[in-house]
Amino acid sequence: MTRARTSGRRAPIAILTDFGYRDHYVGAMKGVIATIAPQARVLDITHGIPAQSVTAGAIALRECWRYFPAGTLFLAVVDPGVGTPRLPIAVETLAGARFVAPDNGLVSLAVEQAGLKRAVELRAPRYRLSKVSSTFHGRDIFAPAAAHLWRGERLDAMGPRLKTIERLSIAEPLVRGRRLVGTVIYVDGFGNLVTNIGRAALARFESSFPGARLSVRIGRGAPLRIVNAYGDAPRGAPLATFGSFELLEIAVRDSSAAGFFKAAEGTPITVTVNLGLRNG
Amino acid sequence: MTRARTSGRRAPIAILTDFGYRDHYVGAMKGVIATIAPQARVLDITHGIPAQSVTAGAIALRECWRYFPAGTLFLAVVDPGVGTPRLPIAVETLAGARFVAPDNGLVSLAVEQAGLKRAVELRAPRYRLSKVSSTFHGRDIFAPAAAHLWRGERLDAMGPRLKTIERLSIAEPLVRGRRLVGTVIYVDGFGNLVTNIGRAALARFESSFPGARLSVRIGRGAPLRIVNAYGDAPRGAPLATFGSFELLEIAVRDSSAAGFFKAAEGTPITVTVNLGLRNG
Amino acid sequence: MTRARTSGRRAPIAILTDFGYRDHYVGAMKGVIATIAPQARVLDITHGIPAQSVTAGAIALRECWRYFPAGTLFLAVVDPGVGTPRLPIAVETLAGARFVAPDNGLVSLAVEQAGLKRAVELRAPRYRLSKVSSTFHGRDIFAPAAAHLWRGERLDAMGPRLKTIERLSIAEPLVRGRRLVGTVIYVDGFGNLVTNIGRAALARFESSFPGARLSVRIGRGAPLRIVNAYGDAPRGAPLATFGSFELLEIAVRDSSAAGFFKAAEGTPITVTVNLGLRNG
Repeated sequence: MTRARTSGRRAPIAILTDFGYRDHYVGAMKGVIATIAPQARVLDITHGIPAQSVTAGAIALRECWRYFPAGTLFLAVVDPGVGTPRLPIAVETLAGARFVAPDNGLVSLAVEQAGLKRAVELRAPRYRLSKVSSTFHGRDIFAPAAAHLWRGERLDAMGPRLKTIERLSIAEPLVRGRRLVGTVIYVDGFGNLVTNIGRAALARFESSFPGARLSVRIGRGAPLRIVNAYGDAPRGAPLATFGSFELLEIAVRDSSAAGFFKAAEGTPITVTVNLGLRNG
Repeated sequence: MTRARTSGRRAPIAILTDFGYRDHYVGAMKGVIATIAPQARVLDITHGIPAQSVTAGAIALRECWRYFPAGTLFLAVVDPGVGTPRLPIAVETLAGARFVAPDNGLVSLAVEQAGLKRAVELRAPRYRLSKVSSTFHGRDIFAPAAAHLWRGERLDAMGPRLKTIERLSIAEPLVRGRRLVGTVIYVDGFGNLVTNIGRAALARFESSFPGARLSVRIGRGAPLRIVNAYGDAPRGAPLATFGSFELLEIAVRDSSAAGFFKAAEGTPITVTVNLGLRNG
Repeated sequence: MTRARTSGRRAPIAILTDFGYRDHYVGAMKGVIATIAPQARVLDITHGIPAQSVTAGAIALRECWRYFPAGTLFLAVVDPGVGTPRLPIAVETLAGARFVAPDNGLVSLAVEQAGLKRAVELRAPRYRLSKVSSTFHGRDIFAPAAAHLWRGERLDAMGPRLKTIERLSIAEPLVRGRRLVGTVIYVDGFGNLVTNIGRAALARFESSFPGARLSVRIGRGAPLRIVNAYGDAPRGAPLATFGSFELLEIAVRDSSAAGFFKAAEGTPITVTVNLGLRNG
């Protein structure tokens, strides 16, 4: 069976960057891929990661990688250190997902979930463009590497093995007496405030106060109950829910919680127990 | 002939959402489609529909569906009621276009033009992701349904038939003596103000005043003549024309009419007749 | 070999517009292409060119065309003159790249590099949609022409030959004594300020002052040294470097130079020599 007939069944190349939608930067990367791997299917995850926000990019990638076909090649570029000694890398995971990115933690949260199998430095000149700029490695190093890997080039041909990759750590919420204190770690385009409080952490906290009713506070805002869906609150009203990240999230029905609470990444969120006030 | 060789000739999946360009949400939907229907060609219509604006999404879909190949599967998600009892639906039309969307009117203007053939509720669990969140049905219900339909699954396998779907109605312009009073129903990214006044309504109005000259007013602005193209006005000057929607549209040459007139969806537009002032 | 099996190897259609990401306009163009040339691979370069900025579009196209496969069909629409007598054109170049666009200079900088081979006016009605609006030639004229050319239609079938196409000229920097005076010609989405000063012009200027140290000034800002990469400056500090355009560029590490210097297209940039202060 020829490549022409099988290529449609191969996993795609999925791109995530902070290059935005104004310039030709993403276009140039796609041109490089189309030149080296004309049959590769290229899917945009997003190019709207806030500029230089490695953490936001790492969270977005962690939240979507598992919905792609096994073997998908993720090309991720949020790269404030371009032109410095930070390494360009490629990673294979136990789950089958592959990643090409700068080694600044951008892929680390996804790789942690997928299971690191092997990582290499992208050093071999033959898998780069002949001329490498000091400001646009997405075009000159990462896109060519992704295209060559998609065509079937071996990871080890790209450069020397790395024992570890840079890790990004997201702080865990802390228990302080009757309060569980977390943080906003991601603000989405609707203005929803995603925290670092997962279902398990909340359940552990809740189990210390049997029968207690929980409420969520952000800054000096009124306490919010945890509901099942955005639609469970009246229009314009704030609410807390477990959203698609499987993390506690503050939202305002049909509006922006970031605007409503003047909140951003880093804003503290507190879950408190009201003993004596039973749920229901 | 095998699927591998024919798939390129199949109609695409075309996606329209209000998910924006900052997050991974659209990426996750594309990952789901690529997993279920790896050969499907996926085209982005837009993901920039103003957040929760079902009407803007419905108008955008109505304005573009007929330019796609027959059989195109439109996957549309503007879904302020996610997590509430509003139904997820799939629709087949007489013109061949198919739609997957929340049943909130989003596809109703397009379906009205294409002719409703049959509609079902997306209820069968086997065509959803195994875990369905309460906040992201685009990923968990709509994208899988679209991918399964694209692969050839029958509409009736998805769930029970519906007799009707939710309809969205756009108000018609009203004749008030010598005035035809309409409304801005859509503001595009250039700031052009699209009204609900079609060529037929204008012609009917005009025929009541033979020989009269028409002019268009928005708020307290000076009366505007109806010209053939944006380029028929000087730079920076406002004008009225029939744009690509085939609706009367107020624009400012090389600038934004929304900014110029401080106008938005809902702003009234008046066509008046000046008897005695003959055209030409 | 059938078309179905070879199409994957064909060069793509690459689209660049100022239509933005809010409306269905780009979607309608893709629908037209998918109808006429269902097998064409369509890549988005960007749709975020600032509205009506022919110069910004021309520079973006110049900066990316050469990274696409030979034979790529560039469909470019930034068209303030839509509906006026400006011509719609198609161009073949010596380098193989093909362009479909309004004849307003938009493709001229790329065509200059690729080498004009032949150009025609898109006049033949059979390669347009049956109904042509006066406001949306991207959908009605340019997209159909691109799709037909991609399918193999001859350029000369589209309309009469043109001897020349409209050219856009970017001013060259000027030497004024000990100063080389340039201009910001492009501001990218990160706020980087790209000037019209190339490496050759800088080298010629520098060679007139052997041993001198150069510094770059924008407005009344402090003099900046020319460094190799964004990462060579401390966070938040301004710098000058040769970026991916191969043009002198003012940036602020991890921030926006456009905001920092309140600069925009047209802002003057000066390179000065400090005699007596030797480099290094």
